[in-house]
Amino acid sequence: MLAATYEGARRFAVRPAAVQPPGPGQVRVDVAYVGICGTDLHIRHGAMDQRVAAPAVIGHEMSGRVAEVGEGVTGWQVGDAVTVMPLDWCGACAACREGHQHVCERLVFVGIDAPGAMQQSWTVDERLLVALPDGLSLRDAALVEPLAVAVHDVRRSGLRPGERVLVVGGGPIGLLVGAVAAAQGGDVRISEPNPARRAAAERLGLVALDPTSAPREDGVADWTDATGVPLAFEVSGTRPGLDAAVAALGVRGRVVVVAIHPQPVAVDLFRVFWRELSLVGARVYERRDFERAVELLAGGTLDVASLISCVEPLARVEQAFDVLEAGEATKVLIDCGAR
Amino acid sequence: MLAATYEGARRFAVRPAAVQPPGPGQVRVDVAYVGICGTDLHIRHGAMDQRVAAPAVIGHEMSGRVAEVGEGVTGWQVGDAVTVMPLDWCGACAACREGHQHVCERLVFVGIDAPGAMQQSWTVDERLLVALPDGLSLRDAALVEPLAVAVHDVRRSGLRPGERVLVVGGGPIGLLVGAVAAAQGGDVRISEPNPARRAAAERLGLVALDPTSAPREDGVADWTDATGVPLAFEVSGTRPGLDAAVAALGVRGRVVVVAIHPQPVAVDLFRVFWRELSLVGARVYERRDFERAVELLAGGTLDVASLISCVEPLARVEQAFDVLEAGEATKVLIDCGAR
Repeated sequence: MLAATYEGARRFAVRPAAVQPPGPGQVRVDVAYVGICGTDLHIRHGAMDQRVAAPAVIGHEMSGRVAEVGEGVTGWQVGDAVTVMPLDWCGACAACREGHQHVCERLVFVGIDAPGAMQQSWTVDERLLVALPDGLSLRDAALVEPLAVAVHDVRRSGLRPGERVLVVGGGPIGLLVGAVAAAQGGDVRISEPNPARRAAAERLGLVALDPTSAPREDGVADWTDATGVPLAFEVSGTRPGLDAAVAALGVRGRVVVVAIHPQPVAVDLFRVFWRELSLVGARVYERRDFERAVELLAGGTLDVASLISCVEPLARVEQAFDVLEAGEATKVLIDCGAR
Repeated sequence: MLAATYEGARRFAVRPAAVQPPGPGQVRVDVAYVGICGTDLHIRHGAMDQRVAAPAVIGHEMSGRVAEVGEGVTGWQVGDAVTVMPLDWCGACAACREGHQHVCERLVFVGIDAPGAMQQSWTVDERLLVALPDGLSLRDAALVEPLAVAVHDVRRSGLRPGERVLVVGGGPIGLLVGAVAAAQGGDVRISEPNPARRAAAERLGLVALDPTSAPREDGVADWTDATGVPLAFEVSGTRPGLDAAVAALGVRGRVVVVAIHPQPVAVDLFRVFWRELSLVGARVYERRDFERAVELLAGGTLDVASLISCVEPLARVEQAFDVLEAGEATKVLIDCGAR
């Protein structure tokens, strides 16, 4: 079988690798599709070399079929369509004991901290598998993981049907947050300066606003008005984006900080005080979010096919990264072969 | 009667003023005690001259007795012990319509935006009055207003009994927040570098920690430990204080931002993301907070008398401000004469 390995210094190699037989409690999966995440781009750039030691197989958004089951595995059969929830927690720390395993103090993010899915055959612990129902295409199912992020973000927001929702940033996660919020009854606007991303939002049935346009020309300020909106998601990863989200909120408004801000960011705490705002952190997902994402896709509530800009075979992994890096694509998948 | 007027440029004058007869729906109150708030200090320094035009009578923490009632006033009788909830809202804006009158878009803060209590006779709208029960001393009752702030802050925090609570900053509001949190079953620590303020905390029955002491010497880091605490209050108004509050929190921890930060402050949003923290703004109080503060004082649950460092007669208003400004006092009252 073939595996793509991160070799450091922006390089990937695609080379033959040994199939790893599943041990007790493990399952070997023939990989169908793997999505490339923004975090994978950071890894490619060498920005996470302290956490990802080359050579490493990465990738954590995937779909596939069970190919082989290890000793003691009873819940899965060869041929089952599956995805992997790539979180492996300790079960013993304070976060785990309080039921917040997804933010376990010793969390292993599979595909970053442990070998990932960018290979034809992937052996993982049985407990990480999530079943995919018949009728859900393996191609669409590669988006379950980022969709689960969005489901979790919306859960953390406490969205109530009918609320106006501003999503700042129209990358893949921002678009999925917008789509989930709309599916739950939110009156959603995506604020995104990039026209290609605004077009992607519109293909999802969302209304996109251009924050660089003047007020009174369908810009964000016009929509949020002086009263403000009750809910915003910061998915831009920028200070202006966070400022825009905070500025858009009305009294008791909530902003969910979805994007990762590696450095401290100046926050308008006077506004937080004056309008009694809340700022809420959200990280990955819980198992129920993952399962809800599967339901949303399988039930046809969300049509995410339009987000898949391009599918490249495993042998062209570097080109796939290049397409994503160019900035016009939304989601790029790597085709590892299983169907 | 005498009134103290802010004359600009750090000056107060105490001079005779005309008693204002109560109009329809108004009540004239003989003022007993007025507390000096940090905001009053800002006014004295000229920092709020755009909002407070000299000459102005300020003061919004008070107690007194009804001296005269205007036409149509039926709920109050001469001699009733009262305090004033110094918020006057419009009733028509979005915040008011949603039941958040205390953050009304056109809120008038009486004692800042309208004449205040630092005078022997004060005429206010009937709807601002809050009754004081028999047995509650008028001296202690001058602390109802700051105590209502603390009640509101603790309400916003969602404190659950038994939770560990870190209060960063041991000024009057920080101490009252700690006292209210403890009264509601919180396991409270006050982090405060000033020994006089730590001593004030201890007089209230609270445990005070010195954040400048080394870990393992009863410092904050030792108490919060690696797991973190579920709840913190930022009452220091400083970036290090906010950092300490955020750093102290465990998974899903909440920090209530009580202090006013006029300028944007850098927040460790990576930590907010990583541990799924919430940052919650809180401003003044609702009527139920004010009434709860009266109950807490009247019921003897909280003994705030130890917080009153000094009482000066109205004629010595400048000396009273000087004492507070020197930084060793907790609460300084001005005695306006009524009993």
